[in-house]
Amino acid sequence: MTADTVVPSRSPESGDTTEYRIEHDTMGEVRVPANALYRAQTQRAVENFPISGTPLERAHIEALARVKKAAATANAELGVLDQDIASAIVAAADEVASGKHDSHFPIDVFQTGSGTSSNMNTNEVLATLATAALGRDVHPNDHVNASQSSNDVFPTSVHVAATSGVVNDLIPALNHLAEALQAKSAEYGEVVKSGRTHLMDATPVTLGQEFGGYAAAIRYGVERLQAALPRAAEVPLGGTAVGTGINTPAGFPQRVIALLAEDTGLPLTEARDHFEAQSARDGLVELSGALRTIAVSVTKICNDLRWMGSGPNTGLGEISLPDLQPGSSIMPGKVNPVIPEAVLMVCARVIGNDATVAWAGASGSFELNVQIPVIAQGVLESIRLLSNSSRVLADKTIVGITANVERARALAESSPSIVTPLNRVIGYEAAAKVAKTAVKEGITVRQAVIDLGFVERGELTEEQLDTALDVLSMTRPPQA
Amino acid sequence: MTADTVVPSRSPESGDTTEYRIEHDTMGEVRVPANALYRAQTQRAVENFPISGTPLERAHIEALARVKKAAATANAELGVLDQDIASAIVAAADEVASGKHDSHFPIDVFQTGSGTSSNMNTNEVLATLATAALGRDVHPNDHVNASQSSNDVFPTSVHVAATSGVVNDLIPALNHLAEALQAKSAEYGEVVKSGRTHLMDATPVTLGQEFGGYAAAIRYGVERLQAALPRAAEVPLGGTAVGTGINTPAGFPQRVIALLAEDTGLPLTEARDHFEAQSARDGLVELSGALRTIAVSVTKICNDLRWMGSGPNTGLGEISLPDLQPGSSIMPGKVNPVIPEAVLMVCARVIGNDATVAWAGASGSFELNVQIPVIAQGVLESIRLLSNSSRVLADKTIVGITANVERARALAESSPSIVTPLNRVIGYEAAAKVAKTAVKEGITVRQAVIDLGFVERGELTEEQLDTALDVLSMTRPPQA
Amino acid sequence: MTADTVVPSRSPESGDTTEYRIEHDTMGEVRVPANALYRAQTQRAVENFPISGTPLERAHIEALARVKKAAATANAELGVLDQDIASAIVAAADEVASGKHDSHFPIDVFQTGSGTSSNMNTNEVLATLATAALGRDVHPNDHVNASQSSNDVFPTSVHVAATSGVVNDLIPALNHLAEALQAKSAEYGEVVKSGRTHLMDATPVTLGQEFGGYAAAIRYGVERLQAALPRAAEVPLGGTAVGTGINTPAGFPQRVIALLAEDTGLPLTEARDHFEAQSARDGLVELSGALRTIAVSVTKICNDLRWMGSGPNTGLGEISLPDLQPGSSIMPGKVNPVIPEAVLMVCARVIGNDATVAWAGASGSFELNVQIPVIAQGVLESIRLLSNSSRVLADKTIVGITANVERARALAESSPSIVTPLNRVIGYEAAAKVAKTAVKEGITVRQAVIDLGFVERGELTEEQLDTALDVLSMTRPPQA
Amino acid sequence: MTADTVVPSRSPESGDTTEYRIEHDTMGEVRVPANALYRAQTQRAVENFPISGTPLERAHIEALARVKKAAATANAELGVLDQDIASAIVAAADEVASGKHDSHFPIDVFQTGSGTSSNMNTNEVLATLATAALGRDVHPNDHVNASQSSNDVFPTSVHVAATSGVVNDLIPALNHLAEALQAKSAEYGEVVKSGRTHLMDATPVTLGQEFGGYAAAIRYGVERLQAALPRAAEVPLGGTAVGTGINTPAGFPQRVIALLAEDTGLPLTEARDHFEAQSARDGLVELSGALRTIAVSVTKICNDLRWMGSGPNTGLGEISLPDLQPGSSIMPGKVNPVIPEAVLMVCARVIGNDATVAWAGASGSFELNVQIPVIAQGVLESIRLLSNSSRVLADKTIVGITANVERARALAESSPSIVTPLNRVIGYEAAAKVAKTAVKEGITVRQAVIDLGFVERGELTEEQLDTALDVLSMTRPPQA
Repeated sequence: MTADTVVPSRSPESGDTTEYRIEHDTMGEVRVPANALYRAQTQRAVENFPISGTPLERAHIEALARVKKAAATANAELGVLDQDIASAIVAAADEVASGKHDSHFPIDVFQTGSGTSSNMNTNEVLATLATAALGRDVHPNDHVNASQSSNDVFPTSVHVAATSGVVNDLIPALNHLAEALQAKSAEYGEVVKSGRTHLMDATPVTLGQEFGGYAAAIRYGVERLQAALPRAAEVPLGGTAVGTGINTPAGFPQRVIALLAEDTGLPLTEARDHFEAQSARDGLVELSGALRTIAVSVTKICNDLRWMGSGPNTGLGEISLPDLQPGSSIMPGKVNPVIPEAVLMVCARVIGNDATVAWAGASGSFELNVQIPVIAQGVLESIRLLSNSSRVLADKTIVGITANVERARALAESSPSIVTPLNRVIGYEAAAKVAKTAVKEGITVRQAVIDLGFVERGELTEEQLDTALDVLSMTRPPQA
Repeated sequence: MTADTVVPSRSPESGDTTEYRIEHDTMGEVRVPANALYRAQTQRAVENFPISGTPLERAHIEALARVKKAAATANAELGVLDQDIASAIVAAADEVASGKHDSHFPIDVFQTGSGTSSNMNTNEVLATLATAALGRDVHPNDHVNASQSSNDVFPTSVHVAATSGVVNDLIPALNHLAEALQAKSAEYGEVVKSGRTHLMDATPVTLGQEFGGYAAAIRYGVERLQAALPRAAEVPLGGTAVGTGINTPAGFPQRVIALLAEDTGLPLTEARDHFEAQSARDGLVELSGALRTIAVSVTKICNDLRWMGSGPNTGLGEISLPDLQPGSSIMPGKVNPVIPEAVLMVCARVIGNDATVAWAGASGSFELNVQIPVIAQGVLESIRLLSNSSRVLADKTIVGITANVERARALAESSPSIVTPLNRVIGYEAAAKVAKTAVKEGITVRQAVIDLGFVERGELTEEQLDTALDVLSMTRPPQA
Repeated sequence: MTADTVVPSRSPESGDTTEYRIEHDTMGEVRVPANALYRAQTQRAVENFPISGTPLERAHIEALARVKKAAATANAELGVLDQDIASAIVAAADEVASGKHDSHFPIDVFQTGSGTSSNMNTNEVLATLATAALGRDVHPNDHVNASQSSNDVFPTSVHVAATSGVVNDLIPALNHLAEALQAKSAEYGEVVKSGRTHLMDATPVTLGQEFGGYAAAIRYGVERLQAALPRAAEVPLGGTAVGTGINTPAGFPQRVIALLAEDTGLPLTEARDHFEAQSARDGLVELSGALRTIAVSVTKICNDLRWMGSGPNTGLGEISLPDLQPGSSIMPGKVNPVIPEAVLMVCARVIGNDATVAWAGASGSFELNVQIPVIAQGVLESIRLLSNSSRVLADKTIVGITANVERARALAESSPSIVTPLNRVIGYEAAAKVAKTAVKEGITVRQAVIDLGFVERGELTEEQLDTALDVLSMTRPPQA
Repeated sequence: MTADTVVPSRSPESGDTTEYRIEHDTMGEVRVPANALYRAQTQRAVENFPISGTPLERAHIEALARVKKAAATANAELGVLDQDIASAIVAAADEVASGKHDSHFPIDVFQTGSGTSSNMNTNEVLATLATAALGRDVHPNDHVNASQSSNDVFPTSVHVAATSGVVNDLIPALNHLAEALQAKSAEYGEVVKSGRTHLMDATPVTLGQEFGGYAAAIRYGVERLQAALPRAAEVPLGGTAVGTGINTPAGFPQRVIALLAEDTGLPLTEARDHFEAQSARDGLVELSGALRTIAVSVTKICNDLRWMGSGPNTGLGEISLPDLQPGSSIMPGKVNPVIPEAVLMVCARVIGNDATVAWAGASGSFELNVQIPVIAQGVLESIRLLSNSSRVLADKTIVGITANVERARALAESSPSIVTPLNRVIGYEAAAKVAKTAVKEGITVRQAVIDLGFVERGELTEEQLDTALDVLSMTRPPQA
């Protein structure tokens, strides 16, 4: 598995002037680009999988490197590796984790379902770097992969990357969005508007109550992630090939996972059952379910924002969203809710990724799920898209929203449902007659009450009527 | 496999007073309700699958009976069955097809994945009826199931039921809905309203154009069904156990399918490749994709209707939907778009059924898909729900819609996007300035053009301006 | 809203001999079956929604009744209702909760999206029962629905029914299944078999380890439910029409929810934000995500069971599943894994229900989601199907499994991957040569090691070789 | 909208040394990289949407350019543009279509839902190129976008790119795969193997029949695409802002679409209803349904291939897949079915993309769907992945498969279901007894027939028995 010679390759047709060297693995010789840090197995995979052109997510490569780093350290501590070899691997892994060698991870996401190709890619790159640094041969399998298998390393790397994305990116981004919404809730605490149920005029709410509800929905999203994390953060490392831990030293799983948790600062734990952990990726399916629930919440919020801001003249027009760019190539002056639209499309993508993850998650057999890379792609993309779009939504739209206070109140007062408080005075059926009269005659609810003789008959006074019909007070919780 | 004795069963605990008889099959004895037309295998399945409590769809039982009828006739013609036995089976099958014996088909949808239990249920009921009519033993397997296997009969029955549902129920229902929408399109050909893109004020359309678009969408739905039918109407009958046609007489598939097509009046054809037809249910997955595309179309239409009818005072209020029932238990006089809501939920269910069908459709192995009953449930339920809800939507909502003509026109005229025709006179950038000025100042586009000096500067005359800003003419296709 | 007269209705065409009475509501008169406990609004809904023919789930009707019972009690305590009216409502609600009047809840699931029709159905039935018991008029809206709205009652009832299903049915059923699997794990602790990764021969595991992994997967399912419950068990009750609690007395939400929790024995809590709780059903979307994750776990387990039991002669044949029914109408003596197939179809249905729930969950606007009934249908059906099928799987399949011990061991010993322990002695590359030689020559790994001269060259002794190749010891975790 | 000055931007903190120029649009000034071909609106969009980092698909950019080319030509013909301006736009569009300027299309897929940003990006790049070539100002809106709107151009471009992908890439790739499968079908016409239904031993088939079924499934996939194409190839071009064709010259839609069809060689047609075409993307939802049906077919095929090739010693071992790369980082010599796994993951992704497309497709309102870019991403990615993976599957796996003929026949002969032909001689019940005896006693079916005395009793002769039990003849269709 070492390089032999560098052969310049110049095929006159293709104009390909890349120089190559010859590597070999257990299946024979392979021509590898001369300057590649990877070796034969990576090159085979590059050639075998010309499918999507998309490599692993950056966060995923980092996680693979961190797993290798922890394994090298644990192997040295437990006597499996010499300390100098381990140290060389650790140093190389730190470099890869930093992103310095991403271009040497060219394998397509759509590869072998265990991620063996990407595990070997990592092993090969680290072996090359460590060999160069150490000045003696560090072997991809016997050293870098010692006490490991693709079958525990690769899924572990997905759980690490996903946990990191949730903890370090998505939860902070959601909190940021929730805070922006909460600030608007406070700002609009007195802005009364019509409630709408079934899209029809209902009793009033404040705009602040609505934004408070949105903030709550986002905070629930954070709770959902936190509820799923204990299982997403359980890793199969130490199970090696099939969960039995074959070819590991005693104590390896505990030690390597402790090191990995420490290095990443993540709440990683050892799988409670290594056979479940090896053969199923259910912790990621569950996490994906939380991500899509967040997408569902955000979809509803963005649609509300779009409708509240609809107009300027033919829509609801209760709020104005900030103008970010011209909205139409043909209709001059038009401005559209572009950020909510982009975020809605993120939600649609997350929904689709979730379908992929569930489908792939159910496809395992016996000791291995063999659709791990596409699960990883789906989960990590969803985390990244939701993180970025939550911040964009907060910063480019929520903070810049302005309320059209007068229009909102005028609409609230026009709603026939403001008759509702009269139920308790005149009963539901009489109140229905009032509401219908108001709509039919185009008059206010107040006038309809008077016209229908309720005041005249002494069923309530005009003062009671005015108190009952105060729209802002209708938004207040009942007081003892 | 014949009944022995009737034993009254009275367990003091359960209070069960059903009388039973003893039947046997190749696995031994089974206690069957004394008056059941079915026998041992059905009873085993009843006991094995206490899961959902839901039996096969009615249309599915009918289809099973019709397959048996065609098979008996073909078997007699081809010398496999005596004519009198075949005739007795045919008569029994007609009874079952008519719905007379539905209560004797008690097996849960969630049963063996081949539907063998329901095939045997059909075989047993027909054998019992035919035996009684004929006065000599008609065997469920050797006679009723002759030249057949569950593996070709059961999927055939699903394709027959689905084709029937599409041809006899859904396409007529969609055409009915399209006609109702088209009638409204004609009625509202001159009702101008604001177009809305991104929910924001756009250039005008007529309400008739919108309803015409809805009618077109529904007619496309019919086309989608027709495009999928050729493959949904291909049936595996004649392939028996694994597609090889083992235990069939020569010419059986052609004859039995011709008889089945004739009896049902459906465009059924023989599978072009019996191995594909036996092992995959892709024709149903494809059909389900057409059903969910219709659900997508209908979702958009119902949402438009709900928004156009939103209000009465705080929404768009461009149309009024018919009042069908009180809308709120607390808000008196409120009326909601209840039919569009019900139809939207049908669409959500169809989307879910489609996910089930694709999932189940991908789960086959070698010579058989073993999730056929749940595929059948999904496809047949979707067809039934879409058929019923299309008619309800047409009859209870579309035909009763009234346009709020004046409000619609007033909104159209208020849209700043009516400046668009001026692009070609004053250019996009100047037109944008007009639109922004109109919104900012709260004036009409016409006034903004004048205020900004375009008329004064002679860039256009007031007549040209009035022509350009006529909202109804903006809805007309350009003329040579 | 009271009955006037009973009019026998005999239309000669239809032969309909039902007797009717005339009821009225705020929209006018309605003809209701004479013996119906429900009234005008229920009847309107029956006529408006002839869509699926499926009423609400039984558990859902019970939950509605329990909400009404708690509300009546709280209303009496807080001075909104007279005690005798409240008591009559409570007694009536207990009857409905018991299932005694299910036939008086005929409204289709596909109804108004708020469930107002079913809320009014409950109000009307309870009013009729309470009026009869009390001897004076109890009003559906003013009394039974006092301090409530469909918009808080109906979603609350879904959360109550779902929480009850999870706590009382599904978690116990899953625990039952996990115990059955765990018992098999213990039983098969020494039964060694080949591991399989990528479906290819891998290093050995015990059958007990595999069943232990299955048990763990199911127990994780229980954890997932428990993680989702805190939010699924939060209820919007007390928010009435739009979350503001309009028309409730002070203290109502706390009191009514405490009573409801006590009556049901469920961990129900008040929504932390009534505006989120009113407008989104995300807690149910999240719960559905947990249900489908369970379906994913169960899918993998059932597929493993089917494959392990495949054969008897042409498959893997490592275990035998119990014979439950004849498997084929044409292939005599065939027995199939019918329960795992049924359960797999349940999983496919749950996946589809989950898609419906997410779709419907995202469809809310402003103060209300209007696809609550279809969300309820999906979640409650999934809970019911998973509960029933988990028990069926445990009782009819898992407990009856027998291991084919000798075949399993023979296969394990034939796997070329048992060379893996030699990696640490002779290195990965040399071990690969051994494995390839064994497969190519059709000899054992042991023989290949010897043939390739490793013993001769003194790289390891025959004793070391035998120790390394002991398949059972390969399944043991490494010891210090 | 023209550049003013080039300002070098060197913020000491960021180390950014990009040089910028100032552009302006209707909203004001924007700083644009000095060498960018795009202008202000593109730059705003780059800044507004830092979400996924993924730009439009290459094929999509090409399609946008081709639409602009056709529009410029039609505009010149119809007198809207001067010929020299039109020619300059055409030349620029050809360059963009060729891929030469892809780096100037930097906008994120997750942008405004109409794709206005990408339409303006195209307008701006073409204006810059045309202006430079022509030596006088070509305006992005007034010239390049003349007679167009994002609302017709952008969806048209998706339909064009999708149609091109289906016609030029996917159908040829599927045909290639079908041919490879069909060649194997021919090769293996006499290789008899056990059929498997429910994964259990069934009557025999030939390996050729199975591969023939796979080929048929793929050819059905081509039919599905062709059935969907008529609607996917209908384009909304000519409808401009809202479907009315405002600001187009008479005859524009017909002419521009004819030119576009000619230029691309695709069967593009004008939308039959421009209001449907403008407001819904159902043709793409339908097409996506066809793509996911293909994914369902391919999933089943790849799973069959994996199982047939399972082993080498503990699986079914009926075929061998080509060795492409070492399969395990820990288990030496292991080789896995990596291509089928990669293709299965493609299928999982396509399933997810389809869920995204349906979700997004249902999200339109009134005159516009505003999730077009994510629909485009899903459909175009699915087409690309299925195209590439179909070729990889054919070339790297199917053609290299070898049959393990003897093992396959031996398994076929061991199946107890080969008793099936005896049904017609001795009846189903007696045949069941034979099969059960064979399995229980571990003897052949032939021996069981003899042991149970059927020959002795003269029910059939040994010759009849041998004829009946010939496994290859069981795979032949019945002859007259």
